[in-house]
Amino acid sequence: MIRMYDLIEKKKRGRALTEDEIRGMVDGFVAGEIPDYQMSAMLMAIYFRGMDAQETVALTMAMAASGDTADLSGIEGIKADKHSTGGVGDKTSLVIGPVAAALGVKVAKMSGRGLGHTGGTLDKLESIPGLSTSIDRERFFRIVNETGIAIIGQTGNMVPADKKLYALRDVTATVDSMPLIASSIMSKKLAAGSDAIVLDVKTGSGAFMKTLEDSVALAREMVEIGTGAGRKCCALITDMDVPLGRAIGNSLEVAEAVQTLRGEGPADLTGVCLQLASNMLFMAGKGSLAECWEMAERVMADGSAVEVLAAMVKAQGGDPAYIYDTSRFARAPFVRKVCAPADGTVVRIDTEGCGIAAAMLGAGRTKKEDAVDYSAGILLHKKYGDEVKKGDVLAELLTSDETRLSAAEQKFLASYTIGAGPAEEKKLVYARVTAEGVERF
Amino acid sequence: MIRMYDLIEKKKRGRALTEDEIRGMVDGFVAGEIPDYQMSAMLMAIYFRGMDAQETVALTMAMAASGDTADLSGIEGIKADKHSTGGVGDKTSLVIGPVAAALGVKVAKMSGRGLGHTGGTLDKLESIPGLSTSIDRERFFRIVNETGIAIIGQTGNMVPADKKLYALRDVTATVDSMPLIASSIMSKKLAAGSDAIVLDVKTGSGAFMKTLEDSVALAREMVEIGTGAGRKCCALITDMDVPLGRAIGNSLEVAEAVQTLRGEGPADLTGVCLQLASNMLFMAGKGSLAECWEMAERVMADGSAVEVLAAMVKAQGGDPAYIYDTSRFARAPFVRKVCAPADGTVVRIDTEGCGIAAAMLGAGRTKKEDAVDYSAGILLHKKYGDEVKKGDVLAELLTSDETRLSAAEQKFLASYTIGAGPAEEKKLVYARVTAEGVERF
Repeated sequence: MIRMYDLIEKKKRGRALTEDEIRGMVDGFVAGEIPDYQMSAMLMAIYFRGMDAQETVALTMAMAASGDTADLSGIEGIKADKHSTGGVGDKTSLVIGPVAAALGVKVAKMSGRGLGHTGGTLDKLESIPGLSTSIDRERFFRIVNETGIAIIGQTGNMVPADKKLYALRDVTATVDSMPLIASSIMSKKLAAGSDAIVLDVKTGSGAFMKTLEDSVALAREMVEIGTGAGRKCCALITDMDVPLGRAIGNSLEVAEAVQTLRGEGPADLTGVCLQLASNMLFMAGKGSLAECWEMAERVMADGSAVEVLAAMVKAQGGDPAYIYDTSRFARAPFVRKVCAPADGTVVRIDTEGCGIAAAMLGAGRTKKEDAVDYSAGILLHKKYGDEVKKGDVLAELLTSDETRLSAAEQKFLASYTIGAGPAEEKKLVYARVTAEGVERF
Repeated sequence: MIRMYDLIEKKKRGRALTEDEIRGMVDGFVAGEIPDYQMSAMLMAIYFRGMDAQETVALTMAMAASGDTADLSGIEGIKADKHSTGGVGDKTSLVIGPVAAALGVKVAKMSGRGLGHTGGTLDKLESIPGLSTSIDRERFFRIVNETGIAIIGQTGNMVPADKKLYALRDVTATVDSMPLIASSIMSKKLAAGSDAIVLDVKTGSGAFMKTLEDSVALAREMVEIGTGAGRKCCALITDMDVPLGRAIGNSLEVAEAVQTLRGEGPADLTGVCLQLASNMLFMAGKGSLAECWEMAERVMADGSAVEVLAAMVKAQGGDPAYIYDTSRFARAPFVRKVCAPADGTVVRIDTEGCGIAAAMLGAGRTKKEDAVDYSAGILLHKKYGDEVKKGDVLAELLTSDETRLSAAEQKFLASYTIGAGPAEEKKLVYARVTAEGVERF
């Protein structure tokens, strides 16, 4: 039996916990034997003292093993997964999943819902009429085996340690600790069972990590954990100082993802998707990075990637006609054009502010229980670096609830800074982090 | 309503909490509105970030005000109090209280019980047949007004914030934080209501603070709090690397205190008592430190201090005959002489070890519920610096339970180091800390 007091004291003094101690702590906490007040003192001590690589791997493995884990051995071939730390307009999962599947990689993906200013893949998918993300294990495996991909919600009692720890961190100001963030994300990825994991760590004003160095540090910790746990794992640090693509909001983003899968998407979204997809294919052993890039471009150009998405939608109960013709999605009844208040250049976008404006229109949730308005959101006409004249349309705001327009417009306008150009150039991808090290672009 | 999350975050970032925030936090915690898991995260953040002088004063005042406080205005004259951080053989309260009272200072003292290796004044007093320390407020005030002194246990619901905070610190490894230690002690002293407070901060192997610098730092914090709260306050840093006097154990210590009050006590105990008493008299405005020292010596020499103790004992229901003739105390039925295993000099005493040996004989408690054997304890024949021959009696161990002797003897022997002399000279008092600064001796 672990004496939690001694472990708190040890961590407080800056000494490393052993694998056994960490496992005993996680198991005891999940079993309710270690009270919240001791765990929160430990979490704060970890905030100040950190954890070394061995401790972080041990914590992640103990958390991953705390509940049900997905045994993907029923799915043939290499299984690959992708995780994004969350952003605004980030519909990359809906693009790279079908691209990888079209090239023979199996994507058995468990996704989450949107909360706060960021969207969630499940909400986006559920904007397709009929589609279900609550699918039992057997059917999930069958869909992946047949179509190459399925995207569902978490099933069963997976990673209860993370649920309990996160709830406690959330009320004790211990969320922003690198080893705790990394272990929370990676425990879910490890439990989800894939062989290869591509991490998309966002950086900038719309990201959880606002600075490049924090993003690189988080990516390194996560890659270290994934590799330490015996998985193929790499991370890209991608820009979230600007919303990705032009669409923010659930069905709007599905439409843009389909456009991108056809090779007709916005340049920034297409570029990030090609980078993520080629890294996923590379880790699945499909060829060199350059070869994987070309393969990904090919399945986007020849329509086979869109076919995979349509097949998945159908297998999950959705109507594939919405994929073949995205104009079928119901258009929000209330649209407001937001115009530039002055001449100039868009020199800064507060991307978190844009995400909040979209949520205010009904596209997101502020509480877990909130319902989502699938057609609500924002279509950006002008983006970072664009020159504008006073009166030009910056964006269209869409909603089913007219009363939401004014506050959302105010929020949106406040997040655009129009000033003297030109705007500084930005990169789409800042760095690639692998077990071997950090490659900066 | 205080948002505890924001306060934890603020302290975590190293920013100072305001007086209002601290009061809201303490009141909310005592009222049960702030859960333990948030408070323990805050305590750990305070451990790492500390508190500045203003915060520590605010915390102490909020804690002191969290329950009943003693209004001593019913007692005439200057009221003085003394607090010791706890030691082995520390019976100074039984000496300096009567000395100060014999010189017209009012001592309305609330004391504690022994726990662990340290003794408590209440247990010592209760070794006097008939004496009660559970006395209501009215009678307490009357005794102080009539005899100049009364020593009782805490009454009513005093400083509930400290009780609740201490219980939480005790299980979350957050006891050893200077502002938390200082505020815990001082909140009780402030609530007890005296005008002048002398702090005896022990240092060395038998003390809570093992190093001189930690003891000075704690003394400075406490004097700052006392002065900040408008009280006269000073501290002496006194030696607890060696037990004080020759007697350890309840009735043994009462007898030694009486001997010292008559001016016939051991030199170390007499010296420390004169220092503490003269500082208490000085703060009560009785004269210069040198004049106060002489007055204290006088009331010890002329018997008036012993008369005050006897009057107090009588007023609290005890039999004063035990004060006039301490040989009346029941002698423990089992005595074991512990002999020196070799020739040499006593070059080190593990004073905490001696205190534990006394507790093992029955003189102390390991749990709050334990009963105390009033006649049990240790009489030291050889002390630090004494030369010994093999076979010389180092000490007598006394107990009512013969089965306790062997283990206690082993513990006691292990705490004495006999080596090549001479032993380094030690000071009785290392420093005096006042609002003006630190004076080292």
